[in-house]
Amino acid sequence: MASCLIGRQLSLCVQKNLWLNSAGCRYVSKAAAKTQVEYDYDGPLMKTTVPGPRSQVMQPLKPNVCLQNVGAVNFFCNYEDSRGNYLVDVDGNRMLDIYTQISSIPIGYNHPALLKLMTNPNNLSTFVNRPALGILPPENFPDKITESLLSIAPSGMTRVQTMACGSCANENAFKSIFIWYRNKERGHNTPSEEELTTCMTNQAPGCPDLSILSFMGGFHGRTLGCLATTHSKVIHKLDVPSFDWPVAPFPRLKYPLEEFSRENAQEEARCLEEVEDLIVKWRQKGKPVAGIIIEPIQAEGGDNHASPDFFRNLRNISRKPYRIFNTWMGDPSKNLFLVEVLNVIRRENLLEEVTRSGKALLNGLYELQAQYPGLLSRARGQGTFCAIDVRDAATRDRLLLQARDKGMLLGGCGDQSIRFRPALVFKEYHVHIFLNIFNDVLAQNK
Amino acid sequence: MASCLIGRQLSLCVQKNLWLNSAGCRYVSKAAAKTQVEYDYDGPLMKTTVPGPRSQVMQPLKPNVCLQNVGAVNFFCNYEDSRGNYLVDVDGNRMLDIYTQISSIPIGYNHPALLKLMTNPNNLSTFVNRPALGILPPENFPDKITESLLSIAPSGMTRVQTMACGSCANENAFKSIFIWYRNKERGHNTPSEEELTTCMTNQAPGCPDLSILSFMGGFHGRTLGCLATTHSKVIHKLDVPSFDWPVAPFPRLKYPLEEFSRENAQEEARCLEEVEDLIVKWRQKGKPVAGIIIEPIQAEGGDNHASPDFFRNLRNISRKPYRIFNTWMGDPSKNLFLVEVLNVIRRENLLEEVTRSGKALLNGLYELQAQYPGLLSRARGQGTFCAIDVRDAATRDRLLLQARDKGMLLGGCGDQSIRFRPALVFKEYHVHIFLNIFNDVLAQNK
Repeated sequence: MASCLIGRQLSLCVQKNLWLNSAGCRYVSKAAAKTQVEYDYDGPLMKTTVPGPRSQVMQPLKPNVCLQNVGAVNFFCNYEDSRGNYLVDVDGNRMLDIYTQISSIPIGYNHPALLKLMTNPNNLSTFVNRPALGILPPENFPDKITESLLSIAPSGMTRVQTMACGSCANENAFKSIFIWYRNKERGHNTPSEEELTTCMTNQAPGCPDLSILSFMGGFHGRTLGCLATTHSKVIHKLDVPSFDWPVAPFPRLKYPLEEFSRENAQEEARCLEEVEDLIVKWRQKGKPVAGIIIEPIQAEGGDNHASPDFFRNLRNISRKPYRIFNTWMGDPSKNLFLVEVLNVIRRENLLEEVTRSGKALLNGLYELQAQYPGLLSRARGQGTFCAIDVRDAATRDRLLLQARDKGMLLGGCGDQSIRFRPALVFKEYHVHIFLNIFNDVLAQNK
Repeated sequence: MASCLIGRQLSLCVQKNLWLNSAGCRYVSKAAAKTQVEYDYDGPLMKTTVPGPRSQVMQPLKPNVCLQNVGAVNFFCNYEDSRGNYLVDVDGNRMLDIYTQISSIPIGYNHPALLKLMTNPNNLSTFVNRPALGILPPENFPDKITESLLSIAPSGMTRVQTMACGSCANENAFKSIFIWYRNKERGHNTPSEEELTTCMTNQAPGCPDLSILSFMGGFHGRTLGCLATTHSKVIHKLDVPSFDWPVAPFPRLKYPLEEFSRENAQEEARCLEEVEDLIVKWRQKGKPVAGIIIEPIQAEGGDNHASPDFFRNLRNISRKPYRIFNTWMGDPSKNLFLVEVLNVIRRENLLEEVTRSGKALLNGLYELQAQYPGLLSRARGQGTFCAIDVRDAATRDRLLLQARDKGMLLGGCGDQSIRFRPALVFKEYHVHIFLNIFNDVLAQNK
């Protein structure tokens, strides 16, 4: 809807006037944004509470259209009209989206570069003919991988294996670790006849009793292998058979960090010691730890951070270095998007931009937690990957709903945290929109 | 490449002349095809052996482009030039594809209906904005599901849950079964405090010792849960920890079926008895069977069929009926394709067509096995989902490579079977191309 979009002209005008077209929103921020997302809207615009009447009519879904799991549906969306940082719902409500589809929309909705990619006739074939990449890759696949994943791989990481989703990637990482471990144990000799026979009926020694160590509060996916390393919420795990694999504590840091440096160092040392104890204990149990999985920031489990030193020491404990295949082995059409997303990130200096907006966001959160000490605590983050704790789970959930009705989408994590997962086109300007609205919500909840 | 395509005019001419532009191919078939795939090529066209020089240069991949698992790569493809039943490689070889990307290209390469769907501006948004379907579905999602999956669901099946791949679907089916089973055991009461605590560290009773019964030779995916029910090849399973779940024998039928009806009925009864014994045994072990998974035709394990009676009796033994969620919960852009694939299948009467070409294919296989009794046996199939056994694995593998060099892509399954997985646009005409070339290959291997 071109008429809904804000052009460069209008956007400059909005910056100067500092006026927002958002019901119940007063503008109090101190800084005006330097840049503007050209195809973005100028602010939230709410017509109904959310879910609105049209979403509600669809919610239970017609009796002949039974999507099994509708309990989690928030509302129905109009993705055609969504733009940049704004998600539009079927009732015409336009919300600033700081949660971005559980953090999976990297450069906002309907980015012009991605629309252009889709209409380029040279790309049609990649979308229409999904290949079995492991056996019949397309000619341009090595180049596309170089342009995308390998161009941003950490130094020293020169090999890549695509998979179609995060769970599949983790499941196959575990398998690689197990295969590597057994090859090392065997001295790379041929497996025994007993191994070949027993593996076909899931028994040792063919299917060995090896384990993966993971951390309490971690989230690594919900397929059965991944789920054995996920420990963030009961609802993910209850009733599902699992592996007897060790679970270490993840450091629980106190904030502000500079005030608790001694306590936090002790806490991290305690967790590392527990890791070492578990490795010994599980070896004694006959289920040696073949690998360790950990998030750089525990997200689903509550945005729990640890220091770079913690990760370095964990790596020193583990110091570790294949038969991996499925039908599709990923999806080159998604890789096409990744190439273009990376182009946009470079062209638009988005990492610089989010460093700036992340700083503004975290500073804003610090100010709010100083202003509402009984309500907010533990503001923390890296870039725009920020979080803050709320008094209790019920208040957190209420804040999320109230913010939504004022045109702002946020997510929860852990027991009582709010997590911020904006797209990379989230500018300082959007931070101020967020802070204004959130301030209004907090004032209602003092 | 429009110039490579065969128009309706030319195709009629080819049908009349019964002449094929394929090196070393003599035309011996008895029937001419009734219909023609309009955008298809007129036959295989081989310029080099496969992999050709261009594929071979790419095969080890440049040192800075390291795809981890290149061992399985057959050759590199030119998907832009591939059409209908023909896959074109980077050396310009055009091969009749009877394996279709491990059976995942339903209506052939670059079908015009799918290209048209991609260029429809109304569909752009579905491709560019992948939603978290479980929480924020697009407005048209219920309708699109009705048009696609629900329009072809077996009668009585009114509920659907999308996932992004087969493994993810099976993993979540297992979880649904476990959750259902425990809810039934509890009488739908709230879980105990002990269950809530123990599940977070993978221990019983929160993570109960339940099992899924599967069949020897079955293939249900390679993630850790699925892999515990997969029993087709050592290479899938060796070195990967698994669950102690029961594995029943799948009937091994003798062919031709009409000659061995008594033996085959006994074989199926034996397998069903074993299923019942395993259910009792695993209950005694404290790992009760919560569900059973079985393929209608065991494919990867060797194209093993069983009678409808076998499946009915298995259902009688099992007689059985959620907390299912992940970030994407499937991909609506793939569902857009499914809607159009179903439209094409209906519009072009493809089910009728493949019934006809499947019959021609199976009859051709019967004739070939009569002609080469020392080489071929056990021809079997449903529609075009056909298979035939070869004397031994080495001969099977050699036949596949020789057929490929003559422009024909086939797949292996089980220890010594060849499997046919053509697209639904595979006509009688293509069957005869296949039979001619295969006959030549067999003559070389008598």
